[in-house]
Amino acid sequence: MKKNNKQKGCVLWFTGLSQSGKSTTADAVYKILKEKRKLNVERLDGDVVRQSLTKDLGFSEKDRNKNIEKVTFIAKLLSRNNVIVLASFISPYRKAREKIRKEVNNYIEVFCNCPLKICEKRDTKGFYKRARKGDIENFTGISDPYERPKNPEIELKTGKLPIEKCADTIINYLEKNKLI
Amino acid sequence: MKKNNKQKGCVLWFTGLSQSGKSTTADAVYKILKEKRKLNVERLDGDVVRQSLTKDLGFSEKDRNKNIEKVTFIAKLLSRNNVIVLASFISPYRKAREKIRKEVNNYIEVFCNCPLKICEKRDTKGFYKRARKGDIENFTGISDPYERPKNPEIELKTGKLPIEKCADTIINYLEKNKLI
Repeated sequence: MKKNNKQKGCVLWFTGLSQSGKSTTADAVYKILKEKRKLNVERLDGDVVRQSLTKDLGFSEKDRNKNIEKVTFIAKLLSRNNVIVLASFISPYRKAREKIRKEVNNYIEVFCNCPLKICEKRDTKGFYKRARKGDIENFTGISDPYERPKNPEIELKTGKLPIEKCADTIINYLEKNKLI
Repeated sequence: MKKNNKQKGCVLWFTGLSQSGKSTTADAVYKILKEKRKLNVERLDGDVVRQSLTKDLGFSEKDRNKNIEKVTFIAKLLSRNNVIVLASFISPYRKAREKIRKEVNNYIEVFCNCPLKICEKRDTKGFYKRARKGDIENFTGISDPYERPKNPEIELKTGKLPIEKCADTIINYLEKNKLI
């Protein structure tokens, strides 16, 4: 039988531009919580979710909101069963994010604040290049807006801070707020 | 901080005709596990899921399978984080059920075996009446097949057994298999 540790369910919601470091930071936090601390943690990632749960949806505001709604449903079920959810989604619309905050247990907004210039320079998937050419529509930061969080629980300068520092900031936050 | 008990994640999958007692039995089990034993349990119910997660889907075989696929995704995430999932879906296709078995942790098929005659007599929602008239298409048992489980972990004669007995059978199974 697996050991269950004392932990509270919560949703760490990583928002930011494409290539701003959302998934990388979430993965680093996952490793610490899951492998080192043996907690119940689940990753929900934009790319993965779109391949399985919402493969019929596009990137218009309406479809993005539908996507986030379905993820919220899952995050709600997990967090109320004491699971820590690490969700990384561009989630560019403030209104949509506020809806998640109301729905789930212990919503923690993590703003991955990385300048567009740096995101575009990274461009590991070549998306920015294609978006600039006009080959991809509704691309956040280029042809679609990103509404910056006004009062995120955590803001990470992911353009200059190393991943380990970002992960530490989050772990410290969870400990300080007695979530782990 | 909530107390976490020692428990293993599993998926109790209630399958059977409409009105066969799937949801009622699952609700009774939920009460025991959640309220009495304070375990991490989650209900996934056909009607509820279709209103939130999959409201765009119909009842053709293809759409039914899509619905079940999405539910499986959630059941997988919950069960691997030590949550007990009580899922009640007609889920008439054997192949679709076998897919769930492969995907999730500790799949337990609960066949709510109630004769069609009794289900039709109950008909609290008036669905059978409408299906007989031809007002509802793809209605399991009337105009659509129900493929009976061949080797369910648990078979409940929900046509004659009282709910409490059915719930007890399930609790006993979980205890015997050291899942709670």
